[in-house]
Amino acid sequence: MKLTILGSNAAAPAYGRRPTAQVLNISEQLFLIDCAEGTQMRMQEYGIKRGRINHIFISHMHGDHYFGLIGLLNTMGLLGRQAAINIYGPAQLKEIIGIQISHSLGFELVFNDISEGEEKVILDTNNVQVKCFPVHHSVPTHGFLFKKKERPRVLLPEKLKEFEIPKYFYKQLTDGADYEPENGTWVKNELVTEGGKKQRTYAYTADTAPHECYKEIIKGVDLLYHEATYTKHFSDKAIERLHSTTVEAARIALDAKVGQLIIGHFSSRYKELHEFELEAQAIFPNTELALEGKTFEIKEG
Amino acid sequence: MKLTILGSNAAAPAYGRRPTAQVLNISEQLFLIDCAEGTQMRMQEYGIKRGRINHIFISHMHGDHYFGLIGLLNTMGLLGRQAAINIYGPAQLKEIIGIQISHSLGFELVFNDISEGEEKVILDTNNVQVKCFPVHHSVPTHGFLFKKKERPRVLLPEKLKEFEIPKYFYKQLTDGADYEPENGTWVKNELVTEGGKKQRTYAYTADTAPHECYKEIIKGVDLLYHEATYTKHFSDKAIERLHSTTVEAARIALDAKVGQLIIGHFSSRYKELHEFELEAQAIFPNTELALEGKTFEIKEG
Repeated sequence: MKLTILGSNAAAPAYGRRPTAQVLNISEQLFLIDCAEGTQMRMQEYGIKRGRINHIFISHMHGDHYFGLIGLLNTMGLLGRQAAINIYGPAQLKEIIGIQISHSLGFELVFNDISEGEEKVILDTNNVQVKCFPVHHSVPTHGFLFKKKERPRVLLPEKLKEFEIPKYFYKQLTDGADYEPENGTWVKNELVTEGGKKQRTYAYTADTAPHECYKEIIKGVDLLYHEATYTKHFSDKAIERLHSTTVEAARIALDAKVGQLIIGHFSSRYKELHEFELEAQAIFPNTELALEGKTFEIKEG
Repeated sequence: MKLTILGSNAAAPAYGRRPTAQVLNISEQLFLIDCAEGTQMRMQEYGIKRGRINHIFISHMHGDHYFGLIGLLNTMGLLGRQAAINIYGPAQLKEIIGIQISHSLGFELVFNDISEGEEKVILDTNNVQVKCFPVHHSVPTHGFLFKKKERPRVLLPEKLKEFEIPKYFYKQLTDGADYEPENGTWVKNELVTEGGKKQRTYAYTADTAPHECYKEIIKGVDLLYHEATYTKHFSDKAIERLHSTTVEAARIALDAKVGQLIIGHFSSRYKELHEFELEAQAIFPNTELALEGKTFEIKEG
C-alpha cells in the first residue's frame, strides 16, 4: 500500500507546486484522491498508469480539488478506455462533467453521490474498504478512510480466557486491534492472537479546520494526510478560511496516535516549506511534507 | 507583435507536449488564444503575466481547447483580479463556466458569443482589430485574425494621378496594401505612398480540414498558424477526423502568400516531430514548428 503525491499546493498553482491530487496504490489497484488541474500530466510524468484507475474520490467542490477531472476522463475516452469509472463525491459533479461531454466517452461513468455530513462505507471489495466522513470546511467536504483488508489473525482461546476478553471484541482482535477497555488492563493483540496480518489504513482529511467531527474515525491509522495550509504565524488566516496550521495538524496526529503524518495543501504565499516541517515535527516527530512526486509506503504489519 | 506557444499537441497531452494554447503580445497587451488544461501553469513557467490578459478567444468546444479556462479564471479571482475579462467563443462556454463558479470571482466575465459560420469583427480598439472566421471541423469552429493597426502611410497625390489609382482604393493604400486590379497594372504601395507603417497580421485557423471558407481571409498575413495534426502518410486519418496534414497546411500557406507558417496540434501518435518540419518546408520553406515555449516575432513593417 503506497501513496504518491501529485499535487501539494492550496488553491492556485505556485512555485512549481500544483493543487491537490494523490494516488493510493493498494495491491496495484490505483485509487485517485482529488483531481486538480494538470493531474493527468503529473500522472504521465510520474509513470502512473491511468488504466489502473477505476475509482476516483472528490472531497469537495473547490476547483483546486476537481478541475482536472474532466480532462482526465476525456483523455481516457480518447485513448479507448472501455471499463467503467466510479466517481465518489458531491452530486454537482455529475452535472459539471455531463455538460462538458457532448459525445459518448466509450465507457460508463458511475456517480456515487456523497451528501453533506454523511459517514458511510462507499466502496467495499475483497481487499479494500473505503469510508467517507465529514470534515469542517467552508463548503460540504468529506475525507476518505482507506483500509486494506488483510488475512485475519487467529484467536488463541486459552489466552482469551486468561485475559478475560469479552466476546464482542473478538472481531476487532482478528483485525489486529489491541484490547483497550476504558476501565481495566489493556491487552496487546499479540498476547491473544497469532498469524494473519494487521489491516493497513490511510486517512485523507481533505481541506478542513481542526474539528471534533473526524477525530474518532482517524484514530490509530497508519498514515494520516492532514492539510496544513499555513504555518502557525498565520493562524488567523487559517481560522478565517477554515483551514489548519502545522501545529493543529500535528496535534491532531498526536491525539489520534497515528503512525505517520503527512501535511500538504501549502498556501501559495510560501516559497519555501522548511518551516512547515519544523513546526509540525516539534509536536509530532514522524511528520513529512506531502511533496509532489514523493511516495509514502505503508508497510505490511 | 509576438506569439508564444503554450501548447502544441492534439487532443490529449503526450511526450511532454500540452494541448493548444497561445499568447499573442501586441504592444504588451496579451491576447490568449485557446486555453487547454494546464495553460495557467505554462504561463507561470514562461513568465507570462496573467494580469495583462483582458481578452480570451476560444475556437471551439473540444476539451483540448478550453479545459484550462475555468482554472485560469478561478486563479485570477483568487489573486484579487478586478478588471473584467472578455471571452469570445461558442455560447456553451457561458453555461460551463457559470456552473463551476459558485461564488463571485471579484471581476466581471463578459461573454461574446460567436455563432456557427459567423465572420465578423469581434474586437476593435485603437490599435488592434480581431475578426473571427469559420473553418471546417467536426464541431462549429472559428479561427481568429489579429491585426495590429499602424500609423497610416501618407498618399502622394501626384503619383496617385500618374498611376491612375481609383479613389475607392486610397484607404487600402494608407493601410499599406498594393494596388492589384483584376485588369490592369499592379502598383506597389511604395510608389504612391510614403512614411507610416504597414499593419501587421496574425491568423490562427484553429482545428480544421483544408477548406475554401477561410482561404480569402488569411491571404497575405504576416504569420499564419495552421494545424498539421498528421504527416502526409496519415492523410486518411486527417480526412476522417477533419484535420490537416503537413502538406495541406504548407500548400495553403503557399496559396495565401503568407509571410511565415507555423504548424502545430501534433497528434499524440508522434514522439518525434522532425518529419513535420521536413514535409512542410519542402512546399513552403518558411515553416516552423509551433513548439511549446517558442516565441515568433512579427517585425514592424
